Amino acid sequence: MTSQSGFAAIADRLEGQAIELPSWAFGNSGTRFKVFGTAGTPRSVKEKIADAATVHRFTGLAPSVALHIPWDKVDDYAALSAYAEDHGVRLGTINSNTFQDDDYKFGALTHVDAKIRQKAIDHHLECLDIMDATGSRDLKIWLADGSNYPGQADLRGRQDRLAESLATIYERLGADQRLVLEYKFFEPAFYHTDVPDWGTAYAQVTALGDRAVVCLDTGHHAPGTNIEFIVMQLLRLGKLGSFDFNSRFYADDDLIVGAADPFQLFRILFEVIRGGGYGPDSEVAFMLDQCHNVEEKIPGQIRSVLNVQEMTARALLVDSDALEAAQESGDVLGAHQVLMDAFYTDVRGDLAEWRASRGLPADPMRAYAESGYQAEIEATRVGGTQLSWT
Amino acid sequence: MTSQSGFAAIADRLEGQAIELPSWAFGNSGTRFKVFGTAGTPRSVKEKIADAATVHRFTGLAPSVALHIPWDKVDDYAALSAYAEDHGVRLGTINSNTFQDDDYKFGALTHVDAKIRQKAIDHHLECLDIMDATGSRDLKIWLADGSNYPGQADLRGRQDRLAESLATIYERLGADQRLVLEYKFFEPAFYHTDVPDWGTAYAQVTALGDRAVVCLDTGHHAPGTNIEFIVMQLLRLGKLGSFDFNSRFYADDDLIVGAADPFQLFRILFEVIRGGGYGPDSEVAFMLDQCHNVEEKIPGQIRSVLNVQEMTARALLVDSDALEAAQESGDVLGAHQVLMDAFYTDVRGDLAEWRASRGLPADPMRAYAESGYQAEIEATRVGGTQLSWT
Amino acid sequence: MTSQSGFAAIADRLEGQAIELPSWAFGNSGTRFKVFGTAGTPRSVKEKIADAATVHRFTGLAPSVALHIPWDKVDDYAALSAYAEDHGVRLGTINSNTFQDDDYKFGALTHVDAKIRQKAIDHHLECLDIMDATGSRDLKIWLADGSNYPGQADLRGRQDRLAESLATIYERLGADQRLVLEYKFFEPAFYHTDVPDWGTAYAQVTALGDRAVVCLDTGHHAPGTNIEFIVMQLLRLGKLGSFDFNSRFYADDDLIVGAADPFQLFRILFEVIRGGGYGPDSEVAFMLDQCHNVEEKIPGQIRSVLNVQEMTARALLVDSDALEAAQESGDVLGAHQVLMDAFYTDVRGDLAEWRASRGLPADPMRAYAESGYQAEIEATRVGGTQLSWT
Amino acid sequence: MTSQSGFAAIADRLEGQAIELPSWAFGNSGTRFKVFGTAGTPRSVKEKIADAATVHRFTGLAPSVALHIPWDKVDDYAALSAYAEDHGVRLGTINSNTFQDDDYKFGALTHVDAKIRQKAIDHHLECLDIMDATGSRDLKIWLADGSNYPGQADLRGRQDRLAESLATIYERLGADQRLVLEYKFFEPAFYHTDVPDWGTAYAQVTALGDRAVVCLDTGHHAPGTNIEFIVMQLLRLGKLGSFDFNSRFYADDDLIVGAADPFQLFRILFEVIRGGGYGPDSEVAFMLDQCHNVEEKIPGQIRSVLNVQEMTARALLVDSDALEAAQESGDVLGAHQVLMDAFYTDVRGDLAEWRASRGLPADPMRAYAESGYQAEIEATRVGGTQLSWT
Repeated sequence: MTSQSGFAAIADRLEGQAIELPSWAFGNSGTRFKVFGTAGTPRSVKEKIADAATVHRFTGLAPSVALHIPWDKVDDYAALSAYAEDHGVRLGTINSNTFQDDDYKFGALTHVDAKIRQKAIDHHLECLDIMDATGSRDLKIWLADGSNYPGQADLRGRQDRLAESLATIYERLGADQRLVLEYKFFEPAFYHTDVPDWGTAYAQVTALGDRAVVCLDTGHHAPGTNIEFIVMQLLRLGKLGSFDFNSRFYADDDLIVGAADPFQLFRILFEVIRGGGYGPDSEVAFMLDQCHNVEEKIPGQIRSVLNVQEMTARALLVDSDALEAAQESGDVLGAHQVLMDAFYTDVRGDLAEWRASRGLPADPMRAYAESGYQAEIEATRVGGTQLSWT
Repeated sequence: MTSQSGFAAIADRLEGQAIELPSWAFGNSGTRFKVFGTAGTPRSVKEKIADAATVHRFTGLAPSVALHIPWDKVDDYAALSAYAEDHGVRLGTINSNTFQDDDYKFGALTHVDAKIRQKAIDHHLECLDIMDATGSRDLKIWLADGSNYPGQADLRGRQDRLAESLATIYERLGADQRLVLEYKFFEPAFYHTDVPDWGTAYAQVTALGDRAVVCLDTGHHAPGTNIEFIVMQLLRLGKLGSFDFNSRFYADDDLIVGAADPFQLFRILFEVIRGGGYGPDSEVAFMLDQCHNVEEKIPGQIRSVLNVQEMTARALLVDSDALEAAQESGDVLGAHQVLMDAFYTDVRGDLAEWRASRGLPADPMRAYAESGYQAEIEATRVGGTQLSWT
Repeated sequence: MTSQSGFAAIADRLEGQAIELPSWAFGNSGTRFKVFGTAGTPRSVKEKIADAATVHRFTGLAPSVALHIPWDKVDDYAALSAYAEDHGVRLGTINSNTFQDDDYKFGALTHVDAKIRQKAIDHHLECLDIMDATGSRDLKIWLADGSNYPGQADLRGRQDRLAESLATIYERLGADQRLVLEYKFFEPAFYHTDVPDWGTAYAQVTALGDRAVVCLDTGHHAPGTNIEFIVMQLLRLGKLGSFDFNSRFYADDDLIVGAADPFQLFRILFEVIRGGGYGPDSEVAFMLDQCHNVEEKIPGQIRSVLNVQEMTARALLVDSDALEAAQESGDVLGAHQVLMDAFYTDVRGDLAEWRASRGLPADPMRAYAESGYQAEIEATRVGGTQLSWT
Repeated sequence: MTSQSGFAAIADRLEGQAIELPSWAFGNSGTRFKVFGTAGTPRSVKEKIADAATVHRFTGLAPSVALHIPWDKVDDYAALSAYAEDHGVRLGTINSNTFQDDDYKFGALTHVDAKIRQKAIDHHLECLDIMDATGSRDLKIWLADGSNYPGQADLRGRQDRLAESLATIYERLGADQRLVLEYKFFEPAFYHTDVPDWGTAYAQVTALGDRAVVCLDTGHHAPGTNIEFIVMQLLRLGKLGSFDFNSRFYADDDLIVGAADPFQLFRILFEVIRGGGYGPDSEVAFMLDQCHNVEEKIPGQIRSVLNVQEMTARALLVDSDALEAAQESGDVLGAHQVLMDAFYTDVRGDLAEWRASRGLPADPMRAYAESGYQAEIEATRVGGTQLSWT
């Protein structure tokens, strides 16, 4: 396969690819040991949106921004929406947060105390109000609920209470809204997590109804898990709602998507396409969920969406007919090679031309570096408090 | 809690505990590098059953034997059943085998070739015929199906074909029979496995119907997986069919249950009891699935069922009221201690008495060693071919 | 083996067991998501020492307290030592800290910039000065040095600079002082860590000299690592300096030692004893390094030292002669049973008597709960800033 | 960087790259569940060498073949050498085998029984005799020694006996010969392995002397291990003797090198080059150690050596100056990008030309497929017993 002709055939399918950015990627983040601050970090939700819009301006890939409540709470969401639109982006998924209030020390939607569960439910209802105001489709729920010691918690009781709490929230969902439940293998709970795997998320959302789906965060699996298999399975079951993209070497490291294992990202995107999760007819949402602990934030986000785009192009390049033929004839090495041929194809030059032909910078990383934006925010964002996770 | 009074209160609940033995545990087994033979190893299915019956005679815990087809194929199952009953045990679960025929190199129930799928389906129908003859309730299906290289197989197509094949088998099931689907993280396939996790097994059996359930093999999970959580979840969803007990340090090591992480076995059994999976009203089957690569086989099986019994006793000793009170009040260390108090209770003396009072040897390991059975089989089982996995 | 007679034979060997407490265990700690504060948390180094001394008063097991610099920096270490001695404990290991200064974002002892390396070296020299003042023997060095992205750092250059920096620090060591180098698999660096395994720590300290040894933190290994093997190896090589005890399910969870896998703790302590690392003639230091994120801190520390004591007792109970005989005759199950017999022996009653006979509370957890200490510190430690990791 | 100019600059450094093939890759292999045979599989050592020579003829990359004793035992090694040379290759590393004799059930070089240890030592001395006859430089020792149950073995005693046995073997080494000790995380022993990690191998070979070095098998590590770090460290310590290349998703899967995680292979080769382990002045040996369970064997080996060559080319393309500049200035994303630019460069076209210019097939996989060799061996190798691991 020559890259040239191959790329021409798939170029159109790259149109309209959208990867939602997390507002919190622009604030400071770190580990339990230390959060390093950097010059130019936003001090307001608007500044975060301005940064996200900058990523979109340089890449054309990131037309929306996910908000985290209460981190991104504002008085006037209409005004915030208008601000976003003025900057060329829109507000996207609303993420709830039930892990930073002292009341949630022993759980939120799963808590033994009905009052605390209600508080957590109410928080989600508030998120739904915000979604009504912003026009967001998705309420994404990631729960820190779990326990640290065997015996600390009644696993079964918590699972039942979780089902009940989710049902209450689901009932309030608008006709065009979705509840997206994220699972995570471990952390911050260290013995058990209430939604630790795709099976649990699947069982819970299936009990809720059609508008409840699963979010697959690529960093939230046990060592050695075949993530593309889960992608396939959730698409097959009609329950893959969205991706939180990032990458990891060991745990939920929240590194730049594609940085740790680019071939894995390729395989994931191949299964997305194979299963109908890509393109205008799919409702699968692509999002980033990453931390930029030591690298620059805006370039980190640009790098991330480019990585997804480049790998999508490679995955689109797979010669499906040749692949199927090799698979059906038991030609192990032949089938493998069809996949590798696409993976090893260097699409960077083609993509640079593709971007240029659409009025985008051929090299968004360089264009951003030369744009002066970073120097400007470092110079002007002085005083105030840099935003972070808290 | 004093062990004495504690034990008296739970002694009755130990009555009737039954742990099925795998016929193949009495044959030779090993790793890909080497299978070590040992004197006295059975050369026929009957000799395997005789050995299994011996384990039951010394422990009172193992009233049935699982068969593996074709390893345990015989001409006359009625005669085999009678032989078993004469020895004090009965025939139990029938395990199918679709991993040792050249035709299954690229899959069995998932194969791209309809003829090979049909062959694999037919094998399962034959197993059902055998079940009719033996009066077995459960058809246990563990599939080696998977692939070794990215691209080798169409993950989605295989999953769909699996569903179809299982449906065909399920249709033939008798009213009192169950299809039990086992999942496994990896091996012998190294890139993808078609039933790799409980979520996949759950989704597949749910699509089949009420008489399809999941088998949880304790060795078949990714590193760090909280297995007792899965026990809880499958019980909650009404889909926990049976256990394959064994233990592991790294992979599917098939070591003696309770040998690698006794506290994990305790937690698993606690969740079994907590979720209603233990006792006369439960349909959850307890089985061993182990290899005795370097240790003696019959003592290895005796040790295994004793481990399950001892840990069941400890799990029954948990003071549920105290546990619940501590859990509800957020007393982390108190709740943990309630669990640990039961785990650290030395039930061995009480169990020895319990056995003696029921006409069983107080110390089954010693009683077996002193019984002369091993010397006898070593002396008499001369000539012929020792059975193994093949 | 009857527990009674067994315990009597080993009771004397429990005398003088000492497990150093980390001052930071008494401050608040948590995850990157949230740090929960609790009433009564110390606001000064002295209050931390008072709490540590309380643990010792109730257990007799924790005669010293490790300090972390700069967290525990004071003006007058002589006064602090006197304060500790007045409370019945003494100051122990000094832990350096090179992970919370903005200068160390890209490394400390390994940094490319000689000025920053010198700053990190100077910090260690300051720690040595403090050791001279406190009479501490050990300088413990845990480095957060590492990188998050392939390419970010020159692995080799960093390793060479590390060797150089350590040599400079080692040179300044007093004749009775030791440099103890701790290794950690990952976190807070996510791609590479400069001292990730015992092999690296061993190679580095061997290059330094006799007074440089390794610290084994039980939570700092890859999944599936056989930690007791490393204990054996480091003792064999004469380089096991100390333990940081804690436990983990997945990563560096810093849970209470013995809480996640008590059998592993037993095996570790068995190898410590087997290899001469326990008792008056050994220089191996026992320390805790834990976080109490959701459980109470002082009871958490009491529980921890009791766990180590109880498991030490069990490990001492192993019938070495029987074990050796079984090992030498290839009696796999017999040898395993000798070990398990000791592990399953319930030593709690014997230990309660042992404590009572020495003027200690038979049940330290209960005695602390009933002592009123917690109520008192909650009532009196009002105002001020609770200490935590920062 | 344009690939064109980049490649020209490194083309010369690809000359002389040599990757040794394992004779056993051409025999049948599989898992403990099943070994699938394939038509054309060698029935003699000579046929294995003929196949290996074929790989070299099509790639120019594999000038030598490693032998496994006793699998490849012949009466006349001079004749075998001559046969190899006639086919354009030479005999390479001699691999000992102490895992398939009943005597080694509980260990070989570590066994408690001095007679069995001596038998294992004698086997290695015999291997050295063979090396004298074949002119081989390296004696590679991989030990299956270990245990399955806690208590089964005395870890310390075994380590000491291992040291003693190795010393006896080392003593007999010729002046130009090397002892290469391989480590492996687990399997076939499941509780402990006597040489489980690089640290143990390093400590053992360091005690032996200069001609004892370590073999790094890329599949023999715990999940999440940073292998390139170990490459760096062993090179730094002067103890990296050789590579056993393969790839893995979960365990020691022995898949084709570069198939599971090509980026990891790239990083490993980058560190090899960075540390002086590549090129005419290096003594680091490159070898494959793989099983072809389901794929064709000869094409599997061709694919493997091509993967190593392609990734070596990419690793050579790294712009070291730009990398160092970015690393020194703390430009995380810039440094990462320098690495990724090389990794993403498609060298396949350049390599095809490079091969053609040297009289090799531009596309060795296709050339082999079209050569008729496979059809010929399938037709002619009829009768006899196909070779496998036993």
